[in-house]
Formats: sequence, C-alpha cells, structure tokens
Amino acid sequence: MAKLHFYFSAMNAGKSSNLLQSSFNYQERGMETLLYLPECAVGDAPMIASRIGLQADALAISTTTNLFETTVHEQEHRFSRLGCLLIDEAQFLTEKQVKQLCRITDELNLPVLAYGIRTDFQGEPFEGSQFLLSWADHLIELKTICFCGKKATMNLRINESGQAVRSGDQVLIGKNDHYIALCRKHFFSTDRLPESVFLGIKKKGVCEAT
Amino acid sequence: MAKLHFYFSAMNAGKSSNLLQSSFNYQERGMETLLYLPECAVGDAPMIASRIGLQADALAISTTTNLFETTVHEQEHRFSRLGCLLIDEAQFLTEKQVKQLCRITDELNLPVLAYGIRTDFQGEPFEGSQFLLSWADHLIELKTICFCGKKATMNLRINESGQAVRSGDQVLIGKNDHYIALCRKHFFSTDRLPESVFLGIKKKGVCEAT
Amino acid sequence: MAKLHFYFSAMNAGKSSNLLQSSFNYQERGMETLLYLPECAVGDAPMIASRIGLQADALAISTTTNLFETTVHEQEHRFSRLGCLLIDEAQFLTEKQVKQLCRITDELNLPVLAYGIRTDFQGEPFEGSQFLLSWADHLIELKTICFCGKKATMNLRINESGQAVRSGDQVLIGKNDHYIALCRKHFFSTDRLPESVFLGIKKKGVCEAT
Amino acid sequence: MAKLHFYFSAMNAGKSSNLLQSSFNYQERGMETLLYLPECAVGDAPMIASRIGLQADALAISTTTNLFETTVHEQEHRFSRLGCLLIDEAQFLTEKQVKQLCRITDELNLPVLAYGIRTDFQGEPFEGSQFLLSWADHLIELKTICFCGKKATMNLRINESGQAVRSGDQVLIGKNDHYIALCRKHFFSTDRLPESVFLGIKKKGVCEAT
Repeated sequence: MAKLHFYFSAMNAGKSSNLLQSSFNYQERGMETLLYLPECAVGDAPMIASRIGLQADALAISTTTNLFETTVHEQEHRFSRLGCLLIDEAQFLTEKQVKQLCRITDELNLPVLAYGIRTDFQGEPFEGSQFLLSWADHLIELKTICFCGKKATMNLRINESGQAVRSGDQVLIGKNDHYIALCRKHFFSTDRLPESVFLGIKKKGVCEAT
Repeated sequence: MAKLHFYFSAMNAGKSSNLLQSSFNYQERGMETLLYLPECAVGDAPMIASRIGLQADALAISTTTNLFETTVHEQEHRFSRLGCLLIDEAQFLTEKQVKQLCRITDELNLPVLAYGIRTDFQGEPFEGSQFLLSWADHLIELKTICFCGKKATMNLRINESGQAVRSGDQVLIGKNDHYIALCRKHFFSTDRLPESVFLGIKKKGVCEAT
Repeated sequence: MAKLHFYFSAMNAGKSSNLLQSSFNYQERGMETLLYLPECAVGDAPMIASRIGLQADALAISTTTNLFETTVHEQEHRFSRLGCLLIDEAQFLTEKQVKQLCRITDELNLPVLAYGIRTDFQGEPFEGSQFLLSWADHLIELKTICFCGKKATMNLRINESGQAVRSGDQVLIGKNDHYIALCRKHFFSTDRLPESVFLGIKKKGVCEAT
Repeated sequence: MAKLHFYFSAMNAGKSSNLLQSSFNYQERGMETLLYLPECAVGDAPMIASRIGLQADALAISTTTNLFETTVHEQEHRFSRLGCLLIDEAQFLTEKQVKQLCRITDELNLPVLAYGIRTDFQGEPFEGSQFLLSWADHLIELKTICFCGKKATMNLRINESGQAVRSGDQVLIGKNDHYIALCRKHFFSTDRLPESVFLGIKKKGVCEAT
C-alpha cells in the first residue's frame, strides 16, 4: 500500500521547504517522521534547511549506509508511530540505496518521499535520481522558473565571477548559490544570460567577489 | 503563453507555504510578485501566513474587487517587472473573479497561481474552486494525509469540544485549527475518529475547552 | 483502497479511446469491467465508440438511475470478478450520482474511472463534472490541441455553416463533429478562427451544408 | 515553446494507442505528424500497432540515425505543416538521440511525444528512458494494473512455459505477449503469481506450448 514518491525539480525550486512541510503535516496528525540527508550534503550539522528559512534535524547517511536496516533499527528504537521516511538531496543515493527504498516501501509498508534534482551542472543524470526516476511509484515535479519566465529544468554551475562552469566534479555541495536553475534552451546558451541574473544572485550574497 | 494554475488540497496541506515559496522563487530570479488575499480570510492584517512559520504581505480583495483592473493598476504603479500573480484562499473568489483571472492570464500574459480547497465542511464545492477547477489550465494537487495515513481530500469542521459540525455557514475563517483534513471515508464516518486526532489538535492550542 | 478517477479533457481528445483501452487492460488481466453511458449520449445503441474506431457495449443510465444499487446488482448477477467501473460522458451525471460513485469506490472498494468534459459550449460547468472535479481522488487531464498548437481546454459549438453558436441548450448529443476544441484565448475570439479549421472539419463529413 | 513529453508506463498499458490517438488529434486539426519506430521494434513492416487494433505507418530508425537531421529533412520534403513528432518504443533510443530530441524541441520548436517503458525484465533502466526521464519537459505516466489490481510499474519476461525469465538479453522484441506488467512487489516474488495470470495470457495465444 505504501508508495515511493520522487519529487524532482531544478535547483532552488523549494524541495527542502516541501519536504519540511510534508514532515510537519505527518507530525501534526500524530505520526512521526524520519529524515535522511546524504553526508556529502551535510554542512556544519546534519540538518535539512530551506532557503526560505525552515529547518529540521536529519540523520546523515553515507553511500555505504544500508537504508533498509537503518530504517528498521530507527523504527524500533526511536519511534512510537513512524508515518513516513523523507530524504533530501536524494540524487546522491546509490543504486543499491534506491533499491533499499523500494524494500522499505514494499516490505515495511512505510511511505518514502525522496527529493532531488535530476541532472548535474553538465546535464548528466545523478545515480540516485536515475534509479528513482526508474523505480519510484510516483514522479512529481516541483516547478520553478528560469529568468526568462519559462519552467527551469536544468542546473548551471557558475563560478565566483558569475561565469558558467562546464567541467569539474559532479558533487560540490553546501554552496547552493553557485547554481542557477535554467530552462534547457538557456542552459545550452549561457552567453545569452542577462546581467540581471547575476545581479539577482549578488543581492543574495553570492558572487561578491565580482 | 501564460497559464492559470490552480493548486488545490485539503486544509492544512501547506498551500500557503507553497505559495510563499513560489513567490520567493520569482523574486530570487529578479521578478516581482503580487499577492491577493480575500478579505474574509484576512485576520488582523492582510498577510498570507503558513502554519510552518512563513508570511508575506498581501493585498486584501473583496468579492466586488475587479481583479483584472486592480492588477492592471498595480502593475503600472508598483512594479518594475511583475512576474506572477498569486492568490491564497482562492475558494472565496466569485465566478466573475475567476473569469478575470482568465483574462489576466490570456490578455496580460501574466501567470496566475491560485491556491484553495475544493469543498467546504459539508463537502459542498466553493464557488471560487468550482470555476477554477473548470477553467484553470493546470490543476495540481498538493497532497496531505488523513490520520489513517491515506490521502486527505475532505475538510471536517469541529467545534471546541472536538465534535464534528455538520451545519452552519460555509465561511468561518481565521480559525484554521477548527478544521481537520480527512480522507473521504473518514469524513463520512466521524464517529470512528480516534482520540489521538483530537489530542494532536489540542497540542496545537485548539480545543482547549475540552 | 479503491479510488475515484476523473479523466477530463476538451472534446475530441480521445477520452473514449482511453476508456476502452483501460477496460481492455483490466480484461486482459482477467478482471471484468462494467461500462456506463448516460442515455442522452446514447445514439442508436448503448455503445461507447471512439472517433478512432474502437467501441464496446455499455449500460445506458438515466439521470434517475441509482448507480450504487445498479452496480451492486450488476456485480452480483453478471460478473465473476469485477475489476473496474468505467463511465463515459460523465459530465451528464447528477450531483447525486457522483455521490453514488464515491460510495461505490469507498464502500464496494471498486475503482471508478469517469471520463468527461469540464465545460459546455458557453464555458459553463456541467453538473457531473463540477462534482467529479470536487470529489474525485485523482484528476487526470487528457491533453489535446487547439488549431493554434496550444493545449485546448474549451469546447466551441458550431452550426452547419461553421459559425460559432453562443446560445441554446447545454445538451445536444450524438453530433460530436459540431464541436471544436479550442484554447481559452481562441474560444473567446472565434472571429479569428482560420478557414483551415473549418476545412479540417468538412473533410470529416461535418458542415457539408456550407 | 515546444515541449518534449515522455509518456512512460509498464508493458501493455496502451502506449501505442495513446500515441496513435495523439497523432490522429493533430491530423484532425489540420496538422501533419511524423512517426518514428526504432528498428529493433520493427516486425514485418515499420508500423506502430496497438493491441487494441489501431495502427499507422512509421519511419524506422536505427541507433545511428541522427534524429535531428532526419527530422529537418522530413519536414522539408514531406510535410506542409508538421505539428508533432511521435516516437514509440523510445526506450531503445540512445543518449545521443534523446539529446537530438531536445534540439528538435528547442531549435525547431516542434513538440515531441516519446513513449516507452522505464525498465527491462530485470528491472534495469533502458538507455533511452533514462535520458528521457532526465531531460524531458513533462513526464506523464500511463497507468495500467497488475493482476492484483494495484498499479503495475515493472515488466516481467516469461518463457513459453509461463516461467519468469531472470537473465538474458535486454532486447527481445516483437513478442509483446511474453511480458507481463506487474506491481513492484509481485515483480520481485513471481513464485506467488496465480495461475489465472497465465490462463489470461494463454487465451491471447501466448504460451500455447504449455
């Protein structure tokens, strides 16, 4: 009966806010929630925080954590009535871990809500997202917009000078503001990005070096 | 090109949070937003606030406000680059006002995001929602859950003693906590509601009189 | 566990094809299906037929048919393993009948798939659709297009001369070809309809009188 | 403005019917359509056919066909007003070809509707689907059901004796009936499949050898 949901979007769409709201909803109805955060996305402390100002403690997981066993253990030791498992930055999960989420859903009958972006700054799929997109029961897009007003689906990495970065490591976490969500057309033609985009980012304390 | 979106859900799903997040997203990308709130939903001040702790100023509108003319006026006098119109508690709009939202979308080419519940505490459609469901370009459900764990789609009104209210005025605003979101099955059989539901509500400062 | 689904679209999107495909899918998996068709949509025989060439027998229902009791009766007398109830032209149902569909879903635990258009040729909601939009567990849009290439959401009635009809009875059935699916913008400005639209219709044997 | 849509489902949900209906809708509104079919899915002739009895000619493409250039060429030489590109069995596309679909959408401003299954008989993603899931503008699920009545999301391969096949080549085309759509739970526990599932298949002329 329980389902595996994958909420996907471009960067800065409000995934963490949505996750925290869902967690809040479960708690309000008397059910407890368990939150996971991949350790490569953990900054100073394992905490899921949204740009808009919300936050909650999470359990840091590594790429070798067995999510099924961990969930069984947590469920037995910490919770009286666990209603839902929520995972932020789920693009960083491994194939094996997504399989474990399927088992949590099907065998423990526990709803799983995973949140993540589909592709990296080069447009390549993340491992976690690839398998969530393949196996999740429900795929739900959280919409956000490109500076042009169209829906954003891609994630551009920019350096401190506001220039598009086209090569480098896939993972460079904890610096959300170095990414811009763009529609596919603008993602592939960054030379046409208007100055206003970078001004908008500067206002938020990014690219101060420029 | 612009579209009229209707985000609907049961009570306490996180509609206002979602609205505020969308408004934030537009602003972050350098576009301004205009927020409307029906005056019957205005408490001490015209403000859209979410249970989870977010809020923003809104323009109070009455059932006689011409939303098209008001939007044209606001757009000309207040905004340099208006990117989106957002309306909370849109179930309280009139048929005429939903038509005006269609014109804002089609003639001003301004995206409109309306948020509301579909039905009242007796299960009857609200006027605003009825026409938004009929005319919106996109219907998007924001999911929340019944105490039983199933999706909630109905809104039960309860009195200070925690008893289901089955008759009375459709509009009784500013007291969110007197409503419980339920699945349709439990909505029609409130006698089976477990004590835990009311305990959960008491914790939040509702039903203190019990 | 069973759900009430409302598949809505503009005219000529392929609702009947989709219904017949779903019915076929259930049968292929060893489950039987029950098909209802409002009698005002019945032509020479109670049959659900798609423009693309598919068809199946259905049970004609009137506005006074009790769908709950009829379904219980049919289930007991005709089917060994009823898997699904499907209703075409569901916009013609009454409020009471949509409530009966809710009971069929919740009390008989039988999935219900209802198909219909949202609004009539004047843009006004149909009774059945209004309550299906308000109470269904899932709202799913079947997309079709306006002659301009945008999504069509409205239904224009045209007379034999290819002129838009703006007044008259809501129900005028059995003559599908007298309707054109349009986007909202073109629905409200039919004077701008290109000749090609009517040529397209003439080809199909409509408007021959022109 | 044009969008890349990916319609995904389990086997035997009605993808080809849906594709043919969409093509029909475009044609009915005076727009022509171009249909592609990967050659590994071509039987006696390049034709998209649905189990329910519909069919249409398609252009066979190989894994080395440049879809962008082919589409430009076809558009110039065959069509007066090309409204849409439709691709069946899109799971067989290569990463490069999905990129070409993005360019067709963005640069030619031509809507693309791709249809495919997400995973193979071992539950592994197909290359085409993986990149369509990652890059498409809209992901739309076409629902079908497991024999248990739950939504089917996985595809089991069975041999002539009706036994689950767990190893072998990913591609084994033209023999639709050797696959069963199952929910994830039953996919991973085929020993519990009821006899009725195989009977249902036998009726359709599959598994005659049993």
